[in-house]
Amino acid sequence: MLGTLQSKLTEDLDKLRVIILTANGPVFSAGHDLKELTSKEGREYHMKVFQLCSEVMSMVQDLPVPVIAEVSGLATAAGCQLVASCDIAVASDKARFATPGVSVGLFCSTPAVAVGRSVPRKVAMEMLFTGHPISAQEALQHGLVSKVVPEEELKDQTMSIARRICETSRSVVALGKATFYAQMNLERQEAYRLTSKVMVENLSLGDGQEGIKAFIEKRKPTWSHGNKTVH
Amino acid sequence: MLGTLQSKLTEDLDKLRVIILTANGPVFSAGHDLKELTSKEGREYHMKVFQLCSEVMSMVQDLPVPVIAEVSGLATAAGCQLVASCDIAVASDKARFATPGVSVGLFCSTPAVAVGRSVPRKVAMEMLFTGHPISAQEALQHGLVSKVVPEEELKDQTMSIARRICETSRSVVALGKATFYAQMNLERQEAYRLTSKVMVENLSLGDGQEGIKAFIEKRKPTWSHGNKTVH
Amino acid sequence: MLGTLQSKLTEDLDKLRVIILTANGPVFSAGHDLKELTSKEGREYHMKVFQLCSEVMSMVQDLPVPVIAEVSGLATAAGCQLVASCDIAVASDKARFATPGVSVGLFCSTPAVAVGRSVPRKVAMEMLFTGHPISAQEALQHGLVSKVVPEEELKDQTMSIARRICETSRSVVALGKATFYAQMNLERQEAYRLTSKVMVENLSLGDGQEGIKAFIEKRKPTWSHGNKTVH
Repeated sequence: MLGTLQSKLTEDLDKLRVIILTANGPVFSAGHDLKELTSKEGREYHMKVFQLCSEVMSMVQDLPVPVIAEVSGLATAAGCQLVASCDIAVASDKARFATPGVSVGLFCSTPAVAVGRSVPRKVAMEMLFTGHPISAQEALQHGLVSKVVPEEELKDQTMSIARRICETSRSVVALGKATFYAQMNLERQEAYRLTSKVMVENLSLGDGQEGIKAFIEKRKPTWSHGNKTVH
Repeated sequence: MLGTLQSKLTEDLDKLRVIILTANGPVFSAGHDLKELTSKEGREYHMKVFQLCSEVMSMVQDLPVPVIAEVSGLATAAGCQLVASCDIAVASDKARFATPGVSVGLFCSTPAVAVGRSVPRKVAMEMLFTGHPISAQEALQHGLVSKVVPEEELKDQTMSIARRICETSRSVVALGKATFYAQMNLERQEAYRLTSKVMVENLSLGDGQEGIKAFIEKRKPTWSHGNKTVH
Repeated sequence: MLGTLQSKLTEDLDKLRVIILTANGPVFSAGHDLKELTSKEGREYHMKVFQLCSEVMSMVQDLPVPVIAEVSGLATAAGCQLVASCDIAVASDKARFATPGVSVGLFCSTPAVAVGRSVPRKVAMEMLFTGHPISAQEALQHGLVSKVVPEEELKDQTMSIARRICETSRSVVALGKATFYAQMNLERQEAYRLTSKVMVENLSLGDGQEGIKAFIEKRKPTWSHGNKTVH
């Protein structure tokens, strides 16, 4: 599953503008297959599984297009980690989120990397120590998802965000996404040094100049979606 | 008081599974005794007081068992810092939280370490600059506490979380808690490197394998609570 | 505008106790003038604009007095960044906040430094990728502002916070503000080392001792607002 996700996320990437991760049925994802994690599979196999999992989670943020989680059911353990790793997450009002590994003696330490960077520490710890699920509303309140909508509007509302992204320039979005994650790891002054340079670079992109020109001329911009610069 | 807290928190630690910090009366804790902080006590004494205080606050997060704050009244200054330093905090709907040091000319700079890492920066600054208390609901909204319950349910609800933790493996919880705080200080890729290793280590624990086996066999796990590994 | 802001923010700074940034009309600030950012102005000019902008935003946090944003209308792009950069932000219930640069092909990368440090990552990304505004209530829920009040109470409520700050000691507030931002960049133990020293320093200030004395004697303190120390 992780291998499939990894190859599907990069397949035809050049033709994509936005990726929506969703699921069929009542569960978004329940994380790892516990049978794969018994001692008979061996230590080296386990290491491979968790390394691959971490690669996939990191890849989501490193892709040049926005990745949206569309969550209608239960997202637990690495499934909750996947939601936390996406750029945007839209949840049905019936969705729930949990890190229940502690119940089976396997603390959700890898999910905690993503969840701990999404919600306040106390909320993360209560989820991790008790395994209890939080509701979609609590997930919104604490920042794990960015929007909660009625179950029946989930697909439409997610698609509406995706369509909005498709109206923008691919290269501008790619530059913006990469810069966002890069600057968040820096101290404020360094973050401003990096982003000031990026703003100037963005302005020298064909699409940067076309967008501003169109705005001044009160017309729709015509994007090239490319990285050509103008002088 | 800080000295007592420090020795009590480590006394009989081997027999404990979870610690609840609570108070009798209408005040959870009002922080330092201001009479100890007058100039006649002297600079060296003051330094000792704040070093001890910081040690106690840090110790809460370094203990191998979860520490829950059960807050029914007012928590101010170092008392608010103590709530912010706990792993989990359950508050009565009548609880209030403040960092009012600025009113007596002593800015809550040490409390700000814990409070500033719990709530959004603007909320922290408004609390620190004005000294005004926030309500339990605001504390929940901003991440200072993880749950707010009616006053009369406070003990039961806190105990219910504690009991839930007692159903899990002590060694798994200890590993999970230590790893959580360690990885939160790391950059994402390093955090995944550390936690991937910890997941494999967790799986090699007797309790890691017992938990998964019990899950597959649809029975309750029998924890050893120890650090024995299996092969 | 940025130049004016920069010089006004430091003019007569010694006589100020608190700064309120507000606007006339329905827009708090819409950020950069796009005409200044066309290719005919040139790369070097653009670099100057963004460097100046970053300096002004950083300066807000480096000033020795609290800076409050009073927001009644729309705050977009660098205007939203300015709100995010203030110490405290009070918003009218009709205020809205957006980072819509992506629509004109210029991703809000510099605003993202301040906004990404104020709201959860998913909320920031949805704002940045779609350009859609969030409401005052959402801004409060996610930590971009610290208070939302009815439009007609905006000036009074902001002034009430400002007045509260004027009742405290200038030198204590200056020490507290500088220390807050310094310790937030440090790892927890280092943060406690720094702030413990600052608490002792604060206690040796005349105003530190006067505040505590007044509290014990149940009277109003008489602040010197200076940096004189006592022994």
